[in-house]
Amino acid sequence: MRSSSQLTIGSVVSRDSGGSLVEQIVRSVACRIDDKLLRTGSRMPSIRQFADEQKVSRFTVVEAYDRLVANGYLESRRGSGFFVRERASLINTSHHHTQEIPSSQQPDVVWLVRNMLRQLPPQKMPGSGLLPHEWLDGELVANGLRAVSRLNQSLLLHYGTQQGFLPFRQQLQLKLAELEIAAAPEQIVTTNGVTQALDLVAREFTQPGDTIFVDDPAWFLMFATFATLGTKVIGIPRLHDGPDVAKLAELAALHKPKLYIIHSVLHNPTSTSLSAAKAFQVLKTAELHDFMIVEDDIYCDMHPGSAVQAATRLSALDQLNRVIYLGGFSKTLAANLRVGFIATSRETAIRLADRKMLSSLTTNEISERVVHKILSEGHYRKHVDRIRSKLDNARDEVTNRVEKIGMRVQYRTPAGMFLWVDTGKDTIAMTERALEKGFLLAPGSLFSPHQLPSTHMRLNVAAMADSGVWNFLEGELS
Amino acid sequence: MRSSSQLTIGSVVSRDSGGSLVEQIVRSVACRIDDKLLRTGSRMPSIRQFADEQKVSRFTVVEAYDRLVANGYLESRRGSGFFVRERASLINTSHHHTQEIPSSQQPDVVWLVRNMLRQLPPQKMPGSGLLPHEWLDGELVANGLRAVSRLNQSLLLHYGTQQGFLPFRQQLQLKLAELEIAAAPEQIVTTNGVTQALDLVAREFTQPGDTIFVDDPAWFLMFATFATLGTKVIGIPRLHDGPDVAKLAELAALHKPKLYIIHSVLHNPTSTSLSAAKAFQVLKTAELHDFMIVEDDIYCDMHPGSAVQAATRLSALDQLNRVIYLGGFSKTLAANLRVGFIATSRETAIRLADRKMLSSLTTNEISERVVHKILSEGHYRKHVDRIRSKLDNARDEVTNRVEKIGMRVQYRTPAGMFLWVDTGKDTIAMTERALEKGFLLAPGSLFSPHQLPSTHMRLNVAAMADSGVWNFLEGELS
Repeated sequence: MRSSSQLTIGSVVSRDSGGSLVEQIVRSVACRIDDKLLRTGSRMPSIRQFADEQKVSRFTVVEAYDRLVANGYLESRRGSGFFVRERASLINTSHHHTQEIPSSQQPDVVWLVRNMLRQLPPQKMPGSGLLPHEWLDGELVANGLRAVSRLNQSLLLHYGTQQGFLPFRQQLQLKLAELEIAAAPEQIVTTNGVTQALDLVAREFTQPGDTIFVDDPAWFLMFATFATLGTKVIGIPRLHDGPDVAKLAELAALHKPKLYIIHSVLHNPTSTSLSAAKAFQVLKTAELHDFMIVEDDIYCDMHPGSAVQAATRLSALDQLNRVIYLGGFSKTLAANLRVGFIATSRETAIRLADRKMLSSLTTNEISERVVHKILSEGHYRKHVDRIRSKLDNARDEVTNRVEKIGMRVQYRTPAGMFLWVDTGKDTIAMTERALEKGFLLAPGSLFSPHQLPSTHMRLNVAAMADSGVWNFLEGELS
Repeated sequence: MRSSSQLTIGSVVSRDSGGSLVEQIVRSVACRIDDKLLRTGSRMPSIRQFADEQKVSRFTVVEAYDRLVANGYLESRRGSGFFVRERASLINTSHHHTQEIPSSQQPDVVWLVRNMLRQLPPQKMPGSGLLPHEWLDGELVANGLRAVSRLNQSLLLHYGTQQGFLPFRQQLQLKLAELEIAAAPEQIVTTNGVTQALDLVAREFTQPGDTIFVDDPAWFLMFATFATLGTKVIGIPRLHDGPDVAKLAELAALHKPKLYIIHSVLHNPTSTSLSAAKAFQVLKTAELHDFMIVEDDIYCDMHPGSAVQAATRLSALDQLNRVIYLGGFSKTLAANLRVGFIATSRETAIRLADRKMLSSLTTNEISERVVHKILSEGHYRKHVDRIRSKLDNARDEVTNRVEKIGMRVQYRTPAGMFLWVDTGKDTIAMTERALEKGFLLAPGSLFSPHQLPSTHMRLNVAAMADSGVWNFLEGELS
C-alpha cells in the first residue's frame, strides 16, 4: 500500500561532509531511501518547501531531485510532485548487458573494470589500480618461473593441494607474525587473488537478502560481486582515520549485517589507515551486533610503518576470531600470477577450502611456487622498499600539481598509491570526455556503494607521468 | 499434514538395470521419494507385503529398508512400520564439517576430492581421475614455462584480459572447428579449469530452488557445487550410448530443469559416448522443455575418433545456441595449470566473462600462454596419440584381470581411461578397508546424484600397475 503523506526530511546539508550541496542532498536522500527511512510511494516535499527547510536555493533542489530521478530513487508525477520509487539496483542489472558497452555509455562498475582489463597503455590510465610495469620487476617474476620450471617435473603435473602450497603458507605465517597476527599454516587458504577470497567468504557467510557493510567510498568490484549473490550492500562513511563509528553502530542496529569488508591499511581509494581507537570501536561494534569483519590488506606492503602513518590491523587485535584477513601479491609482484590468500580460524579455513574446491577445484600451485621462490630469496623486501620510495616522490609531486590546477586532495596522507581528489565537477561527465581522448579515469560514483554522482575521483600517483593527462585535467578545471 | 495411508510401490526390481536386488530396491524407492511420487509421512508397505509383491526375500527387503533409513529416506517407528521422512540432503551438509574428517568416516563427495588432492603416491590411487605423472610430459610443461618467462616481461605483470588470452582463444577456435563446432574467439571465455566453468554457468542460469539434471552416474564434485547454490540435482540414468531419453523426457516434464550437464564423449565414470540418435533426442527434449545443455568435453582428446567409438557432440548439432561447450587441459597436459574454457553464444560469453570477473577478476594468463605455446608447437597431438595407445593397452589388460577376479565391467568400451565395474559388494565398505591399507578407491555411491549405496566403483586403467591394489581387490572378492 502506498502512503502519499508528505515527509519531513530533517537536515541533510552539512558543511563538513564533503562534495557540493547538490551532491550532499542526493547522498542523504538516497541513503534514507536505501535505509527505508523514506518509504516507497511517499511524496517528497515540494521543491520550494525543501529549499526553504534546508536553506538552499530552489535551483539546487531541482538539480538534486533531477539526479535522484535519474538514479531511480524518485519519480516525478506530472502536477503532483516527486515520489519515492521502488528502485531496481543499478548494480544488479549492470552485469546483464547483452552486448559490448559503447564507450559513451554511463560508467558503471563492470564498465570500468572491463576497461582496466582492456590494456590501454598504462600512461593513459590515471584511473588504474595497478602500478605501471616499469615500477615492478618483471625479472623477479621471470626468474621465479624459470626456477619453478626446473623443479621435479611431476610437481608441475598434478593438482595443487586443497588449502594451497604448504611451504608458501608457512612463509605467510611468518609474514603475518610480523604484523602481530598469529596464523598457523592450516589457518591459511590460498585463492585466485583477493577477488576470489571475497567471493568465497561472502558465499560462506551470507544468504540472499542479507546485508554486507563496506566502506564508502570503497573498492568497486565487490559491489557487483555481492549484488550477484543477492545481498544488500550498505556503505559506512570513511573518514581520515577509519569509518564513522557512530554511523557504523547506528546502521548495524538497523541492518544487522553479516559482514563488514574494510581496508584497515591504505584504504582504496583514500589511502587512509585505521587509528587504534577506531579499530577498537569497530571491533566492539562487531561484537555487540554479532557480525564478521573481513580485513582486506592488499596494500599491506605499500605501507611505510606506523611511525609514518598510524595503522592498526583489526586481525592483530582480534587474532582471527571475528576478523578474516585477506592478502595478496597482485599489487606489488604481478597481477597475472593471481596469488591471494585468506587467514582465519581453523574451522572457517576448512569450510572456505571446501568452498574453493567446489568452485575452482584448486588454485594454481605453479604461481604459488613462483611467489614462494621470490619471497624466500629475499629480493622482495628491497623491491617493495623501492616501490614505497618512488611512491613518496610521485605522491608529493602529483599532490602539488593537482592542487595547483584547482583540485582538492580529500586526505593528504603520507603513504599509498592513491589520491582521492575533489574536482568540484561531475566526474562521470569528465570520465566520458577523458575516454574520448583515450584516457581512463576512475570517477567517484564508482566507489560509492550506490553509484551516487560525485565530484570526486581516484588518481593513481604512479600513473600521472603523461603530459596529455595533465593537459586534459587543466582544460577540465579551467 | 502427514498422510499415513499405505502405498503401492509398483515393480521396482528388473533384471537388466544393474546392481544387486537390494541396490535396485534402494535406488528405485529413493528416486520415487526424490521425485515426490512417495510423499513425506507416507507409510511404506510392511516388509512381508513388500517381499511378496516384489517376489524377493524378506531378508532383501530388510536390508534395503535399513539402507534407506541410513540414507535418511525412511524412518522406522517402533511397532508401526517404516515411513517416508523429510530428507536433509547429504550433500548440502557435507561441506559444513567443521573439522578434518577422520579416515573412518563415510565417504562423501568432499571427502573423496580432499583425498585426491592429498597427493598419495599415484600408484596407490586406482580411484584417481588423473593420469599418473609418468604418462604425462613434464618436459612439455617446463619448456612452456621457460618460453613464457623469456617473453617481454611486462606481459607477466599486468592482469590478463577479461575473456582470456586472445591468441589462445583463436587456437581454440581452430580446435573446435575440427569438431565441427563454429566458435569465434569472442564466443570463448577461459576459466580456472572446468570446475570454475560449471560454477559460473550454474550461477548464471539458476536460482536457488531450480533443478539441474546430471547423468547418473556422473562426476561427483559438481553435485556438491550445485548444492551450495541451493539448486536441486536430479540424475538421468546413463546407458551404453547416452542417457535414458524416455526417462529424460519424463523427468523434464516433472521438474522443468534449467540445465542438463552431460558428458557426450567418454562419460565419467563409464567411458561411454553419445550415439547420433541419442544426441538428436536429447536436443529435441531440451527444446521442448526449454532447458540449456552444458556439454562437458574434458575427455575430448582421449577419444580415438568415431570409427572406434561412435560419438556425437551436441554442440556440433546445435552450434552453441542451446548447448554450452566446456573443455580443458587438466587431463592431458597438467592439472596444475588450471586452464579450461567455455564456448557459447556471443551474448552468453559476455555475461559469463562478467561473472568470471566478479568472482576472480581474471584467469592466469601465464598458464594460458603456456598451453598456447605447447599447442602451437605441434607436440601436443603426438603427446595425446601416445596417451591413447597406452590407454588401449592398459584397458585391455585391466579389463581381463578385473573379470578374472570376479568383477563385471558394466560397459566394455574401446576408449577412455575409466572402467565402471560392478564388484557385487558394497563399495563404500570396500573403500574404507582400502583406505586402511593406503589405497584410494572411488566407490559408486559418490557418482550417484543422491549418494545411494552401490556395488559399483570407478577404476582408472592407468593407475592399476601396483600389485598391492590387485592383492587387495582379490582378497575382497574371494
